[in-house]
Amino acid sequence: MIQKIRGGVTAPKGFTANGLYSGIKKSKKKDLALIYSERKCSAAGVFTTNKVKASCVVINAGKIQKGTAQAIIANSGNANCMTGKSGFGDSKKILATAAKSLKIPEKEILIASTGVIGKPLPIKNISSAIPLLAKNLSRAGGKNAAQAILTTDHKIKEIAAEIQVGGRNVRIGAIAKGAGMIHPVMAHATMLCFVTTDAVINSQVLQKTVNESVEDTFNMITIDGDTSTNDMVLVLANGMAGNKKIVAGSKDFHLFEKTLKEIFVNLAKLMVKDAEGATKFVEVGVTGAKNKHDARKTARSVASSNLLKCALYGSDPNWGRIAASVGYSGADVDPWKMRIYLGSELVLQNGGPLKKDISILNRVFAKKEIKIRVDLGQGKENATAYTCDFSPEYVKINSAYRT
Amino acid sequence: MIQKIRGGVTAPKGFTANGLYSGIKKSKKKDLALIYSERKCSAAGVFTTNKVKASCVVINAGKIQKGTAQAIIANSGNANCMTGKSGFGDSKKILATAAKSLKIPEKEILIASTGVIGKPLPIKNISSAIPLLAKNLSRAGGKNAAQAILTTDHKIKEIAAEIQVGGRNVRIGAIAKGAGMIHPVMAHATMLCFVTTDAVINSQVLQKTVNESVEDTFNMITIDGDTSTNDMVLVLANGMAGNKKIVAGSKDFHLFEKTLKEIFVNLAKLMVKDAEGATKFVEVGVTGAKNKHDARKTARSVASSNLLKCALYGSDPNWGRIAASVGYSGADVDPWKMRIYLGSELVLQNGGPLKKDISILNRVFAKKEIKIRVDLGQGKENATAYTCDFSPEYVKINSAYRT
Repeated sequence: MIQKIRGGVTAPKGFTANGLYSGIKKSKKKDLALIYSERKCSAAGVFTTNKVKASCVVINAGKIQKGTAQAIIANSGNANCMTGKSGFGDSKKILATAAKSLKIPEKEILIASTGVIGKPLPIKNISSAIPLLAKNLSRAGGKNAAQAILTTDHKIKEIAAEIQVGGRNVRIGAIAKGAGMIHPVMAHATMLCFVTTDAVINSQVLQKTVNESVEDTFNMITIDGDTSTNDMVLVLANGMAGNKKIVAGSKDFHLFEKTLKEIFVNLAKLMVKDAEGATKFVEVGVTGAKNKHDARKTARSVASSNLLKCALYGSDPNWGRIAASVGYSGADVDPWKMRIYLGSELVLQNGGPLKKDISILNRVFAKKEIKIRVDLGQGKENATAYTCDFSPEYVKINSAYRT
Repeated sequence: MIQKIRGGVTAPKGFTANGLYSGIKKSKKKDLALIYSERKCSAAGVFTTNKVKASCVVINAGKIQKGTAQAIIANSGNANCMTGKSGFGDSKKILATAAKSLKIPEKEILIASTGVIGKPLPIKNISSAIPLLAKNLSRAGGKNAAQAILTTDHKIKEIAAEIQVGGRNVRIGAIAKGAGMIHPVMAHATMLCFVTTDAVINSQVLQKTVNESVEDTFNMITIDGDTSTNDMVLVLANGMAGNKKIVAGSKDFHLFEKTLKEIFVNLAKLMVKDAEGATKFVEVGVTGAKNKHDARKTARSVASSNLLKCALYGSDPNWGRIAASVGYSGADVDPWKMRIYLGSELVLQNGGPLKKDISILNRVFAKKEIKIRVDLGQGKENATAYTCDFSPEYVKINSAYRT
């Protein structure tokens, strides 16, 4: 277990943040966020593998190569994706205005957007709001930033933790948003996650920990099977904790990575719990896989089954749909070796059902938090995927998102 | 266009059929079907690629190797899948009883099941019903058979056509069922399709035409992205038309294959139109792909997007979701070359939106039949996928399928 502390991205030393309504959202909720470090940071990031990428993804993927950054500016309510050359121009304008307001080079600022695709940004509104956004940066402003990146999310998602590295306290803080178009594959979904830390760590090592940490966390959640054009996880490390530099493979490295993973898994679960229309939180554990790849593939396949997700909504313990989704996962599966558990109840082994009192299974599926386990009986690897049920409410939310 | 004639599987010479209620379905609707040819037939089939296969799929896949068959017995309301060794035993019992009643060898009978997974068949009920089922086989019984294979389908799906082969009339008839767990990959979905023909054609040539014909038809429909454990297409050719044998590559072969394809595409469309909860029929055309594989992959990816399907339900022309699903299809995509059309309205080119009167786009998406086209601008291959919208009704149907 990690040692959680209060706050989010402004918990680590030297970070301030802010968020406000700039004029993007019809609801007039906060839609523009800024995270700033008083010192230049080591920077790392992972991005959507969708071939249709928003301009922010393309811009950041280039910038992250050089390994440094000092601020992140993010808007919600508009993805600025498939908005042509002028969309790229708008991202550049935002960066230029932020650079001027923050008095730092444009190249040290990262950018993110989330929301509707194919609609031009109200760039004037955004540009005029940036000076005020920058002026009122504060540690207390972390919450405003957490709010300003939300779209259909109901709750802010922030977390912070503290670890000890060679006698020094090192903090890691993060905010995230999720809700819909969530089916990460590397780090996808219109899933944004911004992490700050005061750790001393270079960008290559930081990138290594991020790559590893997304695999069993953000890449294992699915809400609707749709992979976004705008997903990103960005991490800034400003070194102000003054710890002995964290080097790859060291004990400190493993502690840092473990903490980052726990932060990610916590945020991933918050995203699923706050998913569009979700009424239940579901963990799909796969054990006994031949290899890690099969374990993840199987868990994601089961967690993505629309039919299972409907059954979960209706509290109908229709585990045949689990078996079917294991079968089409692409993993090495032998139906005669497979076991399926609903909660702690074994329902399938030796290729056939176990006689179970249906009322017991109904009770398992009626819970708000449901655990499903598939043992492939083929090896020793395991993985867990996180998902939610599929409700008529999800359909309603997404049948009128744009209008 | 093919020359359609009345009827279904009993339209070709020498075929009779029947269907009745045997005691599987709570609704007491017909649930057991039999199709019989008075002569032994060349037989071909394609089956689900799901690694969790129902016993009927495993049994048929073995039998089809020998290239002959004379009857098909099929039940609905229970998939007899993941029912262990006793499930296999039940399939064998059904075959043995049918063989006795029909007075033909058991090895000449194919078997199919569709319905809930993981529940033992009421084998006694089925066994007692088979003699009566066989006794009342008739040409008029084709409709009963078409009814008896349905699950959540509302309408029977049958079609028949006639072609001329060397001066002889050759007929092809078919019945099918669809509705849910539909996402064929080879030939999947709890999608059953039984085809009869009086053509003279050997089983290898027949198999060739079937393999080719499923690719752009059944394999291009998707209802919910879930691939079934029980899908199959079975074709029986009894040779009673007395035509000159259809050989691979001949003019007759192409005519036969073209007709089979048209029959499949007609049935595929009927399945989508009758899909669980569907309120709209949607064609996703992909043009300008580098190769056929990319064209199909892209069309299937767009047609499978839950988010797009919700937008279709809500008549919300949110084409950004089309762009996103093209991007994660895995096909070679350049967002700057891609064009998207809603109906005949071009909405995206050069990486950005075209200014369109939103009321025009709303009208396109408000229709009951909607065409979407994605031009990848990369080559000359194309493909079309067929899908439906995603409604709260779909969730309701599938939240209480088992109970």
